[in-house]
Amino acid sequence: MAGTAEVLETVDETMDAALGRLFDLLRMPSISTDPAYEDHCRATADWLVAELNDIGFEASRRDTPGHPMVVAHARAAGPDVLFYGHYDVQPVDPLSLWDHDPFEPQMEERDGGAVIRARGASDDKGQLMTFVEACRAWKAVHGTLPANITILFEGEEESGSPSLVPFLRENKEELSADLALVCDTGMWNAQTPSICTSLRGLLGEEIIITGPNRDLHSGAYGGPAQNPIRVLTKILASLHDETGRVTVPGFYDGVRPVSNAMKAQWDTLGFSAEDFLGKVGLSEPAGEQGYTVLEQIWARPTCEFNGISGGYAGDGFKTVLPSEARAKVSFRLVGEQDPLAIRDAFRAQVRAMVPADCSVDFLEHGASGGVAMPTDDPAFEQARAALSAEWGGTAVFTGGGGSIPVVGYFKEELGMDSMLVGFALDDDRIHSPNEKYALRSFHKGIRSWVRILAALRDA
Amino acid sequence: MAGTAEVLETVDETMDAALGRLFDLLRMPSISTDPAYEDHCRATADWLVAELNDIGFEASRRDTPGHPMVVAHARAAGPDVLFYGHYDVQPVDPLSLWDHDPFEPQMEERDGGAVIRARGASDDKGQLMTFVEACRAWKAVHGTLPANITILFEGEEESGSPSLVPFLRENKEELSADLALVCDTGMWNAQTPSICTSLRGLLGEEIIITGPNRDLHSGAYGGPAQNPIRVLTKILASLHDETGRVTVPGFYDGVRPVSNAMKAQWDTLGFSAEDFLGKVGLSEPAGEQGYTVLEQIWARPTCEFNGISGGYAGDGFKTVLPSEARAKVSFRLVGEQDPLAIRDAFRAQVRAMVPADCSVDFLEHGASGGVAMPTDDPAFEQARAALSAEWGGTAVFTGGGGSIPVVGYFKEELGMDSMLVGFALDDDRIHSPNEKYALRSFHKGIRSWVRILAALRDA
Repeated sequence: MAGTAEVLETVDETMDAALGRLFDLLRMPSISTDPAYEDHCRATADWLVAELNDIGFEASRRDTPGHPMVVAHARAAGPDVLFYGHYDVQPVDPLSLWDHDPFEPQMEERDGGAVIRARGASDDKGQLMTFVEACRAWKAVHGTLPANITILFEGEEESGSPSLVPFLRENKEELSADLALVCDTGMWNAQTPSICTSLRGLLGEEIIITGPNRDLHSGAYGGPAQNPIRVLTKILASLHDETGRVTVPGFYDGVRPVSNAMKAQWDTLGFSAEDFLGKVGLSEPAGEQGYTVLEQIWARPTCEFNGISGGYAGDGFKTVLPSEARAKVSFRLVGEQDPLAIRDAFRAQVRAMVPADCSVDFLEHGASGGVAMPTDDPAFEQARAALSAEWGGTAVFTGGGGSIPVVGYFKEELGMDSMLVGFALDDDRIHSPNEKYALRSFHKGIRSWVRILAALRDA
Repeated sequence: MAGTAEVLETVDETMDAALGRLFDLLRMPSISTDPAYEDHCRATADWLVAELNDIGFEASRRDTPGHPMVVAHARAAGPDVLFYGHYDVQPVDPLSLWDHDPFEPQMEERDGGAVIRARGASDDKGQLMTFVEACRAWKAVHGTLPANITILFEGEEESGSPSLVPFLRENKEELSADLALVCDTGMWNAQTPSICTSLRGLLGEEIIITGPNRDLHSGAYGGPAQNPIRVLTKILASLHDETGRVTVPGFYDGVRPVSNAMKAQWDTLGFSAEDFLGKVGLSEPAGEQGYTVLEQIWARPTCEFNGISGGYAGDGFKTVLPSEARAKVSFRLVGEQDPLAIRDAFRAQVRAMVPADCSVDFLEHGASGGVAMPTDDPAFEQARAALSAEWGGTAVFTGGGGSIPVVGYFKEELGMDSMLVGFALDDDRIHSPNEKYALRSFHKGIRSWVRILAALRDA
């Protein structure tokens, strides 16, 4: 670990400047899913390019048909790694539920310590900056870096990553490394860092049901006219059976039971389903019958409804029969489930339920399968030891319920495995109003990357 | 019919001025369901008061806990009638589907003749002004009116009429008359005027399902967390069986079969289900199996979904599990169906489907039963003859699929029957973007009221 202590000391001494840089990044409203924010996404990419060049990377903005990528290289001896993060963020609505402007970050003192509150503070700007700041500190002390590092920042992670696979294919040689480091996951709890060893995939679909060629008066047409909301609710209600299982034919093909060894490890985590659900006002697991909450999140696929709209939704009442109704539906996938086969089966099931005089259209919102990490690669135990040293406890291997499609793409397109290390906490409210990132996550996150890079170098 | 010809001539000669007055009224955005338009509703009432005083009525704005009423009297010999209309209008969203500002009326030349295009042109500002202009012309010619006329204009018809029943109770003596004349219905077709002899009632309900105490990330919580959209769609999907019947217990209590005599009359109307549905892009009746389209609209009750919302409905995708989902549900009622008993049964059915960790709230949006008119009152045949004379064909008695709750309230609160005469056309797009009213409806509507008032006077 030669030279590590000095770097850690530099991290501690330069925290104010590091926070200033993070706040600058958080002020940029890089909402990728809404075309109105296109210029802001490009400006955010430019800001990161300048930041990385300032540290000594060779960085550039790489335009795509969507939002640009940022790619940077710092050639050095040592392990060959690619670091991935995303600079785009989720939409902020409903804006009225935020305590302040989501793009005007604020430091707040809380019982559990200071937090940085802003959209993207945790997902993923705060996280990606832990790695950037670790590099900056290392470079400041040693004039070089402890690894041969490529950085890839994406701007479409929250909108299905349409440009990512083409970009990986076009730049395969440039982006391939021995291992990808990805910082977009969480701690097991505020004291215990975690390396995530599995992720669920995500298939996103939008259903648009169209009936009459215009909105109708429910007095004049109610009865004989098709109502697209009624058609849509019948379809959505058919997607789960009474035990919570998804009814799409073949949906569970490729889903494997959790091994006894993995279950035994999960049992040691001290997970409390009561606490986990209680934090969000719930008390009973509502997923598939016969599975624990951890299994439901980490090892079982789902079908969820993320948005629905149709007709009049304002104050008061309007006796309208709408011409159209829409729903956004997503499937979390595990194991060897095939996203494209499931998309086909889902669409066929929906089409079969669309009656005469109605039509259905589908919009694609991403399709990626679940992934499992190669925990037998020694790098995983080296990183775990580095994390344990920084946080003063035993870092753990856990599953992940969310989707980080890039991990699957790295494997499929570049043959590259990923190691997922992140410092988010369960109560970070990612994707919700008042998102935050603990100052401690940011500070010790930077220090963690310093230690992990040193550990990989010394292996 | 003494003195009628001169009045009709005056109507014809003063059409430009009448249109100017109607356009002034249409420019006022009196959307009653949205509290943001409260001042506009009051201003519209004031405009009508001034208009009626100008004709010689004793008119006044009568404030209520909601939007004001307008009441006017013109004491005269002759039959004792109350004329009812409503000055409030439906919301205009989606605004993007309007060809021009909904509150900047325009005269457009169409193949079928000129039309007045604006929100409220047909429902109900254009219609109520046919009666006002008939009174103005009569007064201009004769210096008095052919009947003892009370006018009642309401400003909450499109938002459930919360103030109407209390107002009728408080002013029972002032408002009671031998017969109410209501102008809020349509012609049978562009050549054939109609008197509507039955109306469906309306029970409006809003369901709000709440689950987790905040929006959640579907990766972090998808599976074990309740999803309010899923709960809501299961509930809505349960409200109709496979034959299109409503499943609320006791729902069909009080629904009577259509008499053979009435069916025989309807058979003479030359109604084409194909044309009726084809105009709005449909081809097959989608209501209860075993009933004709006219029965489905005029004689059968319905359960319709008028609006649904929850989660993320913007462009792109957001992997959120929403805290809340809502639906606006309405029931069209016929015969002796009891709106309050149905409300109770509906709510009990919904409550029984709300799972652990979710809650349901209900908002009321009106409750009124169906009504049938006393077609054996000679006034109905007198009015029919007057309409036939004006339009050059045989006016018909028809059913109505919509709800005009005031007709039930007049009967229940004041013991007063109503006669429904209106000049709207099926393609008027009421409640939809680009609402219009035929200039011919406005012009011959005014002339029709002149003839009807004369006929009632001469009876």
